[in-house]
Amino acid sequence: MITALTAKSVYPHRSVCLIKDVGDGVIPCAIPYMIHTIPDPNQNIMGCGPLDKAEIETIIDKAIALNVEEKRIDLASGQSIFYDRLVLATGMMPAMPPVTGIRTPGVFGIEKSLSAMRTLRERCRQAERIVILGGGFIGAEFADEIARGSKAEVHVVEMMPKLLYFAFDDEFCDMIQQSLEEAGVHLHLNQRVVTIDGGEQVRSVTLEDGEKIPADLVIVGVGGKPNVALAAEAGLRITAGGSIWVDDYMRTNAQAIFAVGDCALKRDFFTRKEVPVWLASTATAEARIAGTNIYGIRVLRQIQGTIAAFSTKIGGKAFASAGLTCRGCGQEGFRWVCGRSIAPDRHPGTLPGAMPMHVKLVFADRAGTLLGGQAAGGESVGELINTIAVGIQKQLNVRELDMMQIATHPLLTSAPTVHPLINAAHMALAKLRGQASCP
Amino acid sequence: MITALTAKSVYPHRSVCLIKDVGDGVIPCAIPYMIHTIPDPNQNIMGCGPLDKAEIETIIDKAIALNVEEKRIDLASGQSIFYDRLVLATGMMPAMPPVTGIRTPGVFGIEKSLSAMRTLRERCRQAERIVILGGGFIGAEFADEIARGSKAEVHVVEMMPKLLYFAFDDEFCDMIQQSLEEAGVHLHLNQRVVTIDGGEQVRSVTLEDGEKIPADLVIVGVGGKPNVALAAEAGLRITAGGSIWVDDYMRTNAQAIFAVGDCALKRDFFTRKEVPVWLASTATAEARIAGTNIYGIRVLRQIQGTIAAFSTKIGGKAFASAGLTCRGCGQEGFRWVCGRSIAPDRHPGTLPGAMPMHVKLVFADRAGTLLGGQAAGGESVGELINTIAVGIQKQLNVRELDMMQIATHPLLTSAPTVHPLINAAHMALAKLRGQASCP
Repeated sequence: MITALTAKSVYPHRSVCLIKDVGDGVIPCAIPYMIHTIPDPNQNIMGCGPLDKAEIETIIDKAIALNVEEKRIDLASGQSIFYDRLVLATGMMPAMPPVTGIRTPGVFGIEKSLSAMRTLRERCRQAERIVILGGGFIGAEFADEIARGSKAEVHVVEMMPKLLYFAFDDEFCDMIQQSLEEAGVHLHLNQRVVTIDGGEQVRSVTLEDGEKIPADLVIVGVGGKPNVALAAEAGLRITAGGSIWVDDYMRTNAQAIFAVGDCALKRDFFTRKEVPVWLASTATAEARIAGTNIYGIRVLRQIQGTIAAFSTKIGGKAFASAGLTCRGCGQEGFRWVCGRSIAPDRHPGTLPGAMPMHVKLVFADRAGTLLGGQAAGGESVGELINTIAVGIQKQLNVRELDMMQIATHPLLTSAPTVHPLINAAHMALAKLRGQASCP
Repeated sequence: MITALTAKSVYPHRSVCLIKDVGDGVIPCAIPYMIHTIPDPNQNIMGCGPLDKAEIETIIDKAIALNVEEKRIDLASGQSIFYDRLVLATGMMPAMPPVTGIRTPGVFGIEKSLSAMRTLRERCRQAERIVILGGGFIGAEFADEIARGSKAEVHVVEMMPKLLYFAFDDEFCDMIQQSLEEAGVHLHLNQRVVTIDGGEQVRSVTLEDGEKIPADLVIVGVGGKPNVALAAEAGLRITAGGSIWVDDYMRTNAQAIFAVGDCALKRDFFTRKEVPVWLASTATAEARIAGTNIYGIRVLRQIQGTIAAFSTKIGGKAFASAGLTCRGCGQEGFRWVCGRSIAPDRHPGTLPGAMPMHVKLVFADRAGTLLGGQAAGGESVGELINTIAVGIQKQLNVRELDMMQIATHPLLTSAPTVHPLINAAHMALAKLRGQASCP
């Protein structure tokens, strides 16, 4: 959608056509909230209004073949479409782990259509014991939504030592886990499911350690893999990680073909390694690059690498991360120094609605360049993390951040004297100076 | 406080002493909210806890003379203190306009002490008709706080054509005015007070156009002027705007004497002109620079110029601005292009608590450098403006912002496809390309 809208905006005299195989698509990020928070599932439909308004043709059909030589797409309906320029935005497919019984009725993956979500919503509302496979964002958000919206018993099975292990350092993972446990969610960490039992209808899930969890509904949220079948069959270059290879301008190795979003190669901002970061906001940035450069790179716009900026809300508390965690630094061999700070997100902190805001910032230990940040607190964390995200992308230095001028207000933010964004930089700087502590 | 804490942190073996003349100081930014929102005025006391903890000596006394030659400060109590290094952080004095009757009982300026605020709080809670002189942040926030917290009739008299005229462009001023008018506040724009009438107790206020507004309480919030008496009498250089002159390292023209905060010269980030921008967050940034460099400029840290980043909340809606407005660009001769965008601050926009978020960004019309931004919406605007503030200070370009990767979440932010921060940049970029519109 964003590639189409951008291309039409930059090249208004070209005709743009969008082919999609799901007619009743939903806004994907809000899928967990379709169970209880969003009163009517119709409210989360991904409409075609903006496309219609921009005079972009939309075809609901499935592309089944791509002919690179003839610049032709064949559709399931039998129709063929010839193109000047093609953009592949085929997204990803939810993964179903190779577990005995994974096809048992009552086991649901996450599908991005209204009809599938209506079914899952009804099942979630009726179920008494729900097991969620995977403790990433989808798993944690579904667990929170279901546990707080109903009386169902909720279990999450995660193979890593913590929930959201790749997104946060331990202390933030722990806050998230505590919040879920307070809502009554049962966590099974360092665990895998070995069988799903039931036959006609799921009855239980058996873990590696032999524990059998009774269940009348299983939700699978273990991630996914890029949907590259069309590209691969047409001979386009596929990466080791299973994505469509693209250059920094989102061009594939085939002439006149671009790829954007979850199906396209993501390179890490700092290491340029291929990384499995599939986020709507990253896809949107890529879409704007492809849409602008589709008829020639008139404006030098390239993706700098993916920084993995995300946020979530668990148990009424917001959590967010951008760039490298300390754990990520360790794994990649980055030497780092980190600073932490906590302050109420209103001042004075006794004001109604005030919540503690935690910020942790990670900097390169000599250069002082901002590598990443994590935050937890009230809803303003959702925008706070974007200051960090922009700072990473603009290579903000710890000394610059320490003296950054920011806006503060009693009813909206922490006090200027203790704002955790600035104070965390200040703490890191004190460590860089070799001191033990600072105010 | 922040200079002292920073200096003690960077030079832990030096002894640091803070002299202040108000023993019961309050957190200044929250003063308007001491009338109703903060249940107990004691909750807004500016404590000495952090100073005590850092082993900084605090003296409650008034500095009455500075002897530069002898490096000596004389106090009202008769005591004298000799210093190695001196930092002047004498702040500003609230201005009382030269109006007949300004000293009538019942006319109150804003004093930053608990005792003064207790009196004002009682008077505000008892008053039936309140006139506020000045429609800047203080005036607008007091009007909102009083009108929503009591049945008093509230009038605001402002000499400019709009409230908050120097902070926002017209459309944002209009939103703020509408919000206040909905709360029943009476606005008198393009007006000055000529007399305050009453004698023993204020009874009314007469405007330039002859209108007489009955009043039993008058609050003066027309700004102030830097408190530079001590510095001026000691022969330090004072600027044309009435501030203590400082260089980019916060050093005055006298050896070993620094100045920070409202009393010290502020230079505009873009023009380097002296500007009357007095904000706690700017003062805090300056304090960290002075505190770090006080025994020699070991770390190159200089103030880049003041960008005036601020936020407020009026009528339950947040408003914020950073850098140049379009009006400011016009006045300073900057050629600019602006982009505007509105989207719900949740996605889908039907989620509970969703509010429309307006963002307006101003860029240099050839270079595309971010010059300023304004925003209105829910509470997350308080942190959103800091992404803009950091962007200005890091000289973010419209093309970089258009492809910036940001974090989004249904319950916390706008959708990635329409986030107003990115979309406003996209709109401005379309204008830079000479197009009429874009999606």
